[in-house]
Amino acid sequence: MTRVDDQIYMRRALSLAMRGTGFTSPNPMVGCVIVKEGIVVGEGYHRRWGGPHAEVEALSMAGNHSFGSTVYVTLEPCSHRGKTPPCAPALVERGISRCVVATVDPDERVMGRGLDLLRTSGIEVSVGLLEDEARWLNRGFIKGALTSMPWVTIKAAVGLDGKIALKDGSSRWISGELSRVKAHLLRSQNDGILVGKGTVISDDPSLTVREVAGPSPVPVILGTVGDDRKIRSDSRTIVYDDGFIKREGLKNILLDLHRRGIRRLMVEGGGAVISSFLCEGLADELSLFIAPKIMGEGVSVASCLSIGSMEEALGVRTLSVKRQSEDLWFEGVFPCSLDLLKRSEG
Amino acid sequence: MTRVDDQIYMRRALSLAMRGTGFTSPNPMVGCVIVKEGIVVGEGYHRRWGGPHAEVEALSMAGNHSFGSTVYVTLEPCSHRGKTPPCAPALVERGISRCVVATVDPDERVMGRGLDLLRTSGIEVSVGLLEDEARWLNRGFIKGALTSMPWVTIKAAVGLDGKIALKDGSSRWISGELSRVKAHLLRSQNDGILVGKGTVISDDPSLTVREVAGPSPVPVILGTVGDDRKIRSDSRTIVYDDGFIKREGLKNILLDLHRRGIRRLMVEGGGAVISSFLCEGLADELSLFIAPKIMGEGVSVASCLSIGSMEEALGVRTLSVKRQSEDLWFEGVFPCSLDLLKRSEG
Repeated sequence: MTRVDDQIYMRRALSLAMRGTGFTSPNPMVGCVIVKEGIVVGEGYHRRWGGPHAEVEALSMAGNHSFGSTVYVTLEPCSHRGKTPPCAPALVERGISRCVVATVDPDERVMGRGLDLLRTSGIEVSVGLLEDEARWLNRGFIKGALTSMPWVTIKAAVGLDGKIALKDGSSRWISGELSRVKAHLLRSQNDGILVGKGTVISDDPSLTVREVAGPSPVPVILGTVGDDRKIRSDSRTIVYDDGFIKREGLKNILLDLHRRGIRRLMVEGGGAVISSFLCEGLADELSLFIAPKIMGEGVSVASCLSIGSMEEALGVRTLSVKRQSEDLWFEGVFPCSLDLLKRSEG
Repeated sequence: MTRVDDQIYMRRALSLAMRGTGFTSPNPMVGCVIVKEGIVVGEGYHRRWGGPHAEVEALSMAGNHSFGSTVYVTLEPCSHRGKTPPCAPALVERGISRCVVATVDPDERVMGRGLDLLRTSGIEVSVGLLEDEARWLNRGFIKGALTSMPWVTIKAAVGLDGKIALKDGSSRWISGELSRVKAHLLRSQNDGILVGKGTVISDDPSLTVREVAGPSPVPVILGTVGDDRKIRSDSRTIVYDDGFIKREGLKNILLDLHRRGIRRLMVEGGGAVISSFLCEGLADELSLFIAPKIMGEGVSVASCLSIGSMEEALGVRTLSVKRQSEDLWFEGVFPCSLDLLKRSEG
């Protein structure tokens, strides 16, 4: 049972949660709003991994107003002790009377235990308000909990003919300046950024976030590259050498990156790498900057994918299409990945 | 010298002109509005080839109100006798005092002579109001007058990876139903519709306009096809056999189509044909339905184009981008074709 105002407060909690973007992994982003008699008495969000949880921040702001209040939280309060004390017992202790939760925590150490604890303490609990939004926000965390792999976003700039590079491999610049700024924004939302050694050798990118404020993701390179490359100056850089790739394959690389705490991975290039992720069905999300130009012969965005009939073409659910100066910015998600995010019934 | 109201009346004249879409070739579309003392006393447009000109329709409606009136016309009134008597002398005869013209007639039989006749008869003449719009509307007619070739619009449905067909040539259906309705609208705006024999053999299309009201363009086939194909039931169908194509090339085919009265030609497929038009620089406009799917290996929209560096990529000026249910509808024009439409100074 939710009420009309509940939506408003939960949206506020979601927008607070979003402020943690790029800083909380491997933890989820969480936002919390505490309301008493129609007044917001506490707010908080999980600012960074290792820092206080959203509920703790909000309770601390609410002080004694927490007694008899309603708490809105974007993820089920935890019941186990991690880096910080568990939140569900804290909420009980501080006398809240109602708790509205967007979605359950898929972490097997929680998974309903937080809600049970609240319920058995006599707190009115409702779950599922703005659940799709809450799960989308934490798609990296949720996919991680379910598959032990990061959420993979393919980012590419293409011409109208779907080419990501010319025959000789050159791709600077397909998209316009504004698209490149947006691409930095995407980088800052990911924990890791993956490129192939071909890109590192030919473009020598630093892969840092420069055009917007935000954390730089951990660089991940597929293949051995020389120490003289800019990317090697980042001490966090992860390199999978050619032997490892051949032996283990992309799926094991994703499992390894998850173990290293990466929940959202952006794959930026080059063509062969992007193609491999698409063809092996390891991509979840697609962020394409489509430039109004025709590139002709060249490297196609999914060259290795072999489709037998039109029905088998890889469908993408469109999330948004925006004009970025001259370019089009297409964002989409693969339907299976969207299904994965749905809370399983029972 | 134009006045504030002039824009309003000229827009009305342009929208009247548009009603002739698909029916006037090889004549241009023309609209005319006659205004006296702030009241529209006459309106008309060129409805079909062989029918009365816009000015004659409008004058007939205006009757005696034409004396002392202002005439808005989207194209310079003609001074020569064609299928119907010339319009400029008629305007003089009917005592108009001012004539506002969007653009001059590029037809060498007119080209300023109509305006001269008006001016020497003491009528105030101004030229150039909403000229870009007026020239765009008649892009087929203007390109024809300047190059003796039709305006060529490439229409294609592609995946996000720019593929217009799978490896085996299949392409039914890449785009959704709504896009296919729009494609019929495009057909009805063209005088001719061109496909390669491969498309005729594999898909056996009728190429008629069915999903919207409007005239069906003349079918044009590149290559010899059997008499059992649907397209052969249209007595207007033009077939260029393989020998002719090899001997004459695409450019001579365009010159021939212009001689046959085709001013706007839509190229609908298949991949090789579309590619040839793009690669030989014979395309003016691009109408792409981009479906949110990845098709992998297959036929690219411009496979034969070889580009040496990113600077040489074929730029397209975006005209509009619209969501069509699941698809994106991209419309663009090649910059050189847009330049061609500009009125040459002097």
